[in-house]
Amino acid sequence: MYFIDKSSKIPLHIQLYNEVKKEIIHSLKVGDKLQSIRKVSSLYNLSKTSVESAYSQLVAEGYVDSYPKSGYFITDTNFQGFENEVIVTDEKKEEKEEYLYDFLHARLEKSSFPLKIWKRISHKVIDDSLDFGSYSEPQGEYSLREEITKYLMSSRGVKCNASQVVICNGFGDSIALLIRLLNKKYDTLAIENPGYHVAQKAFEISGYNIKRIPVDDNGINIDQLKKSNAQLVYITPSHQFPTGVTMPIANRIKLLEWAKKNDSMILEDDYDSELNYDNRPIPSLQGLDRNQKVVYIGTFSKSLSPALRVSYIVIPKFLLQNLNSTFESKVSLFTQKTLEGFMKEGHWERHLKKIRTLYKKKYHLMKKMLTSELGDTMKIVNQGGGLCININPTVDFDFEKFKKLAKENKINLCFAKERVGGDWDAFMMGFGGLKEEEIDPAIKLFSSLWKKCIKTAL
Amino acid sequence: MYFIDKSSKIPLHIQLYNEVKKEIIHSLKVGDKLQSIRKVSSLYNLSKTSVESAYSQLVAEGYVDSYPKSGYFITDTNFQGFENEVIVTDEKKEEKEEYLYDFLHARLEKSSFPLKIWKRISHKVIDDSLDFGSYSEPQGEYSLREEITKYLMSSRGVKCNASQVVICNGFGDSIALLIRLLNKKYDTLAIENPGYHVAQKAFEISGYNIKRIPVDDNGINIDQLKKSNAQLVYITPSHQFPTGVTMPIANRIKLLEWAKKNDSMILEDDYDSELNYDNRPIPSLQGLDRNQKVVYIGTFSKSLSPALRVSYIVIPKFLLQNLNSTFESKVSLFTQKTLEGFMKEGHWERHLKKIRTLYKKKYHLMKKMLTSELGDTMKIVNQGGGLCININPTVDFDFEKFKKLAKENKINLCFAKERVGGDWDAFMMGFGGLKEEEIDPAIKLFSSLWKKCIKTAL
Repeated sequence: MYFIDKSSKIPLHIQLYNEVKKEIIHSLKVGDKLQSIRKVSSLYNLSKTSVESAYSQLVAEGYVDSYPKSGYFITDTNFQGFENEVIVTDEKKEEKEEYLYDFLHARLEKSSFPLKIWKRISHKVIDDSLDFGSYSEPQGEYSLREEITKYLMSSRGVKCNASQVVICNGFGDSIALLIRLLNKKYDTLAIENPGYHVAQKAFEISGYNIKRIPVDDNGINIDQLKKSNAQLVYITPSHQFPTGVTMPIANRIKLLEWAKKNDSMILEDDYDSELNYDNRPIPSLQGLDRNQKVVYIGTFSKSLSPALRVSYIVIPKFLLQNLNSTFESKVSLFTQKTLEGFMKEGHWERHLKKIRTLYKKKYHLMKKMLTSELGDTMKIVNQGGGLCININPTVDFDFEKFKKLAKENKINLCFAKERVGGDWDAFMMGFGGLKEEEIDPAIKLFSSLWKKCIKTAL
Repeated sequence: MYFIDKSSKIPLHIQLYNEVKKEIIHSLKVGDKLQSIRKVSSLYNLSKTSVESAYSQLVAEGYVDSYPKSGYFITDTNFQGFENEVIVTDEKKEEKEEYLYDFLHARLEKSSFPLKIWKRISHKVIDDSLDFGSYSEPQGEYSLREEITKYLMSSRGVKCNASQVVICNGFGDSIALLIRLLNKKYDTLAIENPGYHVAQKAFEISGYNIKRIPVDDNGINIDQLKKSNAQLVYITPSHQFPTGVTMPIANRIKLLEWAKKNDSMILEDDYDSELNYDNRPIPSLQGLDRNQKVVYIGTFSKSLSPALRVSYIVIPKFLLQNLNSTFESKVSLFTQKTLEGFMKEGHWERHLKKIRTLYKKKYHLMKKMLTSELGDTMKIVNQGGGLCININPTVDFDFEKFKKLAKENKINLCFAKERVGGDWDAFMMGFGGLKEEEIDPAIKLFSSLWKKCIKTAL
């Protein structure tokens, strides 16, 4: 007996399909014959088409076999386990934590994104009738890669053709692709200490041995690098993460010579060199190289938007052959085309100027506020640019208490130790996401907590 | 002697910086002293600020050291190699090939993308003042994952919570993430033969042994799978790629029992089951599983747009813990929010109905045209749905000649052999990208070439 509700919104053939399926699972045996289509149709006053449609679905799913002129028979199916239905539980919605002041070093100010221009260009891209039915070119749209190439050549001194650029969707993706392209030629990665833990982790997961090379006032220590016998090195030469050191030209040249002699590769991460406030950005290492020994890693996350998910790598030509045929582009055509228009119309250069001025102001304000509020209880351990000032207490300090107080007061910030591994620690005072007018109250609140955590001598 | 052109658009301090750098590289020695700021300023009639700015940049880059009250001195730099400038050559723009008829199986019709609705919702997302300064949640926006969950539960019988969904940016990314999550628990992957070469390649690159298991009329051969001793299997049970076979319920249950007994994982790729024309889509294997043994792999590429770069995986809860802290979201917040609005407003369900009708019509027209034009010189070897009909000649056929003719006539199509590896071959007659009215002339042209390649007995 099937239960069919003609007033229900569920189509009749689907109701019948569900009823017959239930019967098969709970009552019928292998080889049993279903009632004929004619019979079910007249018993339940259903159209023949509805019954046929329900039966045909059961055949498609393999519950029954259809034998022409004989009818529909239950197949050899073992229905153990159908009894305990999976219960999908209601779950609490994952909620993003709300902070009063967020010192996260990787955030940008919401209002600094050129929303109006982006909207206009994205409309234009849709009106130009972008083909959403197709795939983007595997390395990313050539015309976007050309814009990036022009920018890199004029502003970063990078020397490349558009064919050497691959558009990726963020740092993790850039590194994952590099690991694929390097194709296990090297088994050890040298990396700065302190350095960027996300890069280290990505290589570790892929089975690389990691050699941590100390950073001094000139960046990675090249003698130590040589002693490590590593042939692959990941560095942030223009604005070392997290110390902020710039590698001087002499060391850049030594590094390139080492790479040449040693058949090595240098992975140059130029993550935030656009945000150099005291000078013009330092030209890239890649532009000095003459021997195809440098991969250049760049991103739009630090200066345009982390939400866009666009980064890129510039690879030496010989590595292009390792991009195999199954490689697919990672960034939506829509984003690519909008970004291309944004750059082509000159907005990217203008935007960089605008945010350099904006963040420079915030940077100096932060420095001033920190110095006046905390005086000589702290020292600044990272200089020069970016979205973050790293500081450390010069006094005996209760870090755990501070973390507790910060949480209670809805202040978010990262500690270098958690971000760079090893022993090097610092308060990472990011200001990218703070509005200019928030800096004063934010640092005042921060300082009041800070002062409570200074241990006084008995 | 520096050459400074006051009528040039290049700022004076940058001109001076370039001139002094050239002098350092070509003429000066380590320890040489630069002319004083005052002197250069008066010699070239430049402001003191311009000269300071040029010198400060040279200090930042490490060409010179600054000693207070003494002046600027050339650092110990070795400038070998500066002579041979890298010449960036003009390169020929990579051009996309233009086809008269493109039978690529993974394309969609340009006009089938809901451009107007997408535009409206994307405006709304911008007007709602999306925060481009922030990162998306690592697994993708929760609210989008909720929409996907609702859809999967009602239409695909998938049983999951939003916390089990991870938004990825296409098939390659989904598989790369899975490989990371599986974390080398298995060393061997069983895969259908014929099967999806892109999946196989991704696992091969990651060091997996591959066991190719034959596909019969019921999908992957389960006895052979058992014999392989593999514990990890990748399958396309609802619409096998490329044969189109649907795995019947009896085999699905056997497969799930095998996974339970064997502590195995099943990777269920449900790439195009929305495009089932003869029946409703077959409910997913994931929904039948009671033991957290199935990962469900889905995409928006086959039914909405390959250009959007949005796919997703649904993972058992225990695998969530393997998502480590450095995991970052892959899809632009903008795309995520627009897609979320598109689904929330009910457009996704309507879109699916629309394209199912559209592609069903095209599918049947393709079949009719192929049959009437080629008669019994071909047989159809893939049925039931999707964006592609696979055919093979039943006569002695000159494949090489065909490929040459196709190229000459600007017809693009793939052969199964190139896409699935192994011996299984077929003409993959994709119709996703063809307009309905193009099918008649496209198949007529195709057939005229086909007929020229039939080898006649001597």
